[in-house]
Amino acid sequence: MSRSNTVFIGRKPVLNYVLACMTLFKSGQEEVLVKARGRSISTAVDVVEVIRGRFMPELKVGEIIIGTEELTSPDRNQPTNVSTIEIKLHR
Amino acid sequence: MSRSNTVFIGRKPVLNYVLACMTLFKSGQEEVLVKARGRSISTAVDVVEVIRGRFMPELKVGEIIIGTEELTSPDRNQPTNVSTIEIKLHR
Repeated sequence: MSRSNTVFIGRKPVLNYVLACMTLFKSGQEEVLVKARGRSISTAVDVVEVIRGRFMPELKVGEIIIGTEELTSPDRNQPTNVSTIEIKLHR
Repeated sequence: MSRSNTVFIGRKPVLNYVLACMTLFKSGQEEVLVKARGRSISTAVDVVEVIRGRFMPELKVGEIIIGTEELTSPDRNQPTNVSTIEIKLHR
């Protein structure tokens, strides 16, 4: 499973992830995968929209997949469900 | 433009919107549109995942569209951009 074309969205500023995606495209990737879960899902959409609106208007948004992941944390007895998103970008 | 099959996601608890979607399906709608913008985008994905995981496992997620809306507020001089999502559900 190659993750060299995947950007995981966390809690850093949007532009950090914008830059990460652009760097992947500049390095020759034809497709970049933006992944996020929980509250970061909104940021993932922001990242894609900023790239499209400001830096790469020709960028195409491919498939968008939503899902659920089960997280088990040592502090809790029960696993918690968290929503996920995967946005495929290609030029 | 009919919006009778659209649920707009705001800041209420997830289950409120889950109920709103389920009510539309029960009332005979074949397709329900879940719309959100900004921070509520994550909640929109939560809503869909809860419906699928807990209440209607047979539900199908159709097209997911992301975009940007320009908001003008009287407090600000410049319009601000906000990300949007539209998730199509059908049974």
